[in-house]
Amino acid sequence: MTTELDTGLPSIRQIQTVIREETEVELKLITNDLLTGKIRWQDAHCLCLMDHYDQPTVVWRTALVYLKPKL
Amino acid sequence: MTTELDTGLPSIRQIQTVIREETEVELKLITNDLLTGKIRWQDAHCLCLMDHYDQPTVVWRTALVYLKPKL
Amino acid sequence: MTTELDTGLPSIRQIQTVIREETEVELKLITNDLLTGKIRWQDAHCLCLMDHYDQPTVVWRTALVYLKPKL
Amino acid sequence: MTTELDTGLPSIRQIQTVIREETEVELKLITNDLLTGKIRWQDAHCLCLMDHYDQPTVVWRTALVYLKPKL
Amino acid sequence: MTTELDTGLPSIRQIQTVIREETEVELKLITNDLLTGKIRWQDAHCLCLMDHYDQPTVVWRTALVYLKPKL
Amino acid sequence: MTTELDTGLPSIRQIQTVIREETEVELKLITNDLLTGKIRWQDAHCLCLMDHYDQPTVVWRTALVYLKPKL
Repeated sequence: MTTELDTGLPSIRQIQTVIREETEVELKLITNDLLTGKIRWQDAHCLCLMDHYDQPTVVWRTALVYLKPKL
Repeated sequence: MTTELDTGLPSIRQIQTVIREETEVELKLITNDLLTGKIRWQDAHCLCLMDHYDQPTVVWRTALVYLKPKL
Repeated sequence: MTTELDTGLPSIRQIQTVIREETEVELKLITNDLLTGKIRWQDAHCLCLMDHYDQPTVVWRTALVYLKPKL
Repeated sequence: MTTELDTGLPSIRQIQTVIREETEVELKLITNDLLTGKIRWQDAHCLCLMDHYDQPTVVWRTALVYLKPKL
Repeated sequence: MTTELDTGLPSIRQIQTVIREETEVELKLITNDLLTGKIRWQDAHCLCLMDHYDQPTVVWRTALVYLKPKL
Repeated sequence: MTTELDTGLPSIRQIQTVIREETEVELKLITNDLLTGKIRWQDAHCLCLMDHYDQPTVVWRTALVYLKPKL
């Protein structure tokens, strides 16, 4: 399994920014679920989203559709 | 994760054109969502689409179905 | 991203034939969309389909289900 | 794109048998389509299925769910 | 196409056990189909499931969701 | 098939923690199934989930959407 994140990529950096600034985001998944929360970390396989009750959800990258800031 | 975009490919160049010319496009996703807006950037994992309110949506390539100019 | 098309493969050659002969085809996608038109080009990531109004649709290979000649 | 078929694998050989013996098969796809016909060829990306009117359908391997002989 | 099965992996060994012991299993697929039967063989691309009438179904690994013993 | 798990990744370690601490988790799958139980092991292809009756379900990683602790 590939395990390196290329931090030169805009998409990886955008998520790093969202983590650092604790931006609330919407995450659309291939099951049509729409999760909201703050991203805590990313690695080569997954993102971790914290919800309003500070519960972590580990989301697989293969299930990601889109991410946008929650308005 | 593969991080190089082969800018010699028609599909990569077509998206570069759409970015440069700020063409409004429709983006169909595997969830059946149809997003419209202008593409801001592309990298090996994602495209970034700006909507009418200039809000960015980062879309994963694995979720892309088709792209066409909005008429 | 892999960028070479192996033109020795039957599937790649069949699409090259369909491009050269301007055959009208049906393209079934994983969203269950059925697109019809003529294929203009293929590369390692995408096909480009021209519809009846000569509008291009760039379709990602990961979204392809089947292709057949339109009767 | 990987282009070699490993003809030592049971799954590749089973399809070779089905091609050679012109067995009628059912092919279930991720769109839930169920195609029936005879397989004409396989390569690293696709299978080609001939229907009852001898029309070819090129099916991408990424869209395959299962194959079984039609009873 | 990758063709080696790593027989040191728990998931590969668990399926080998199920084959050897002729355990009846349920196989959930991405189309939401639930197949039941005994697994005859596995390779890098597929599993082969025998149903109650001893008819083989070749299932692609990309379509697998879960496997469990039938109770 | 890639068979090494990179135990330095947060996502792999988080699952190791959940295994060691026998945390009850919810596992959302691409079929929209929501499984609950305790994870017994993980490898490069699969996770194994034990349900309340101590029955194992082998889940393919390609089918994973998200994992969270059951509250």
